[in-house]
Amino acid sequence: MTFTETEARYLLDRALGRLATIGPTGAPQNHPVALWVNEDTGTIDIGGPNLGTSQKYRNIQADPRISLVVDDVAAQPVGPGGQRGRGLEIRGVIEVLRVEQPLMDGFTDEVLRLHPRRIVAWNIDTPGSNNRNVTLSDRA
Amino acid sequence: MTFTETEARYLLDRALGRLATIGPTGAPQNHPVALWVNEDTGTIDIGGPNLGTSQKYRNIQADPRISLVVDDVAAQPVGPGGQRGRGLEIRGVIEVLRVEQPLMDGFTDEVLRLHPRRIVAWNIDTPGSNNRNVTLSDRA
Repeated sequence: MTFTETEARYLLDRALGRLATIGPTGAPQNHPVALWVNEDTGTIDIGGPNLGTSQKYRNIQADPRISLVVDDVAAQPVGPGGQRGRGLEIRGVIEVLRVEQPLMDGFTDEVLRLHPRRIVAWNIDTPGSNNRNVTLSDRA
Repeated sequence: MTFTETEARYLLDRALGRLATIGPTGAPQNHPVALWVNEDTGTIDIGGPNLGTSQKYRNIQADPRISLVVDDVAAQPVGPGGQRGRGLEIRGVIEVLRVEQPLMDGFTDEVLRLHPRRIVAWNIDTPGSNNRNVTLSDRA
């Protein structure tokens, strides 16, 4: 499995992440995105309104390497050691797909499928960091 | 002024952002960070525990170009056109400083000072996007 059970549940509970891409000049750009986790394949699908005409879409077509961070700081202690902050940074590559059924009403038919290569998790399963490389999931 | 009054107030109200950097292989990385806005200089100071030994610090020393996104999706309509989502993406360059007084207890004395070059704002002052280049602020 790409994600632990606790990580997958955390990702399923959070609809928003921030996606870092490489822009046309080589400098990074950073975009809030809606995300859907597929626990079976260990991939994450990212959609949006007008995705196909967005700068992040063009960035990814030029360089598919991205980093998605999904994190929060809770008002109360929530982590396994009583931490308030927790999250996951997922580095990997994006495969661009077209789907028959957009992920949400109002979204266009492009989907960015994130194949994780490295996961940096903090205060999810255990206090502190749990960082590891993951096998690239099978491509569709 | 680098930021409009509404943008500065929005940034002052939000302690957390996500900072995209370029990692050692040229792929992006993405890090939650604590931030402090200086309205006079139009810069943003970023700190953290053990910042000087962090990967983002090494990344910035190799390539100072970053993108900081500060955004939220509120439960109720909050935008100027009744939107729930709003935010700012601030692209620019980081100047690494050492300060006598860390930004917070428990932080080390390194500060990442973000000098904005381009601001992408959505649903802050007006419905939709307000994107513009900004003059690089004076360096200390």
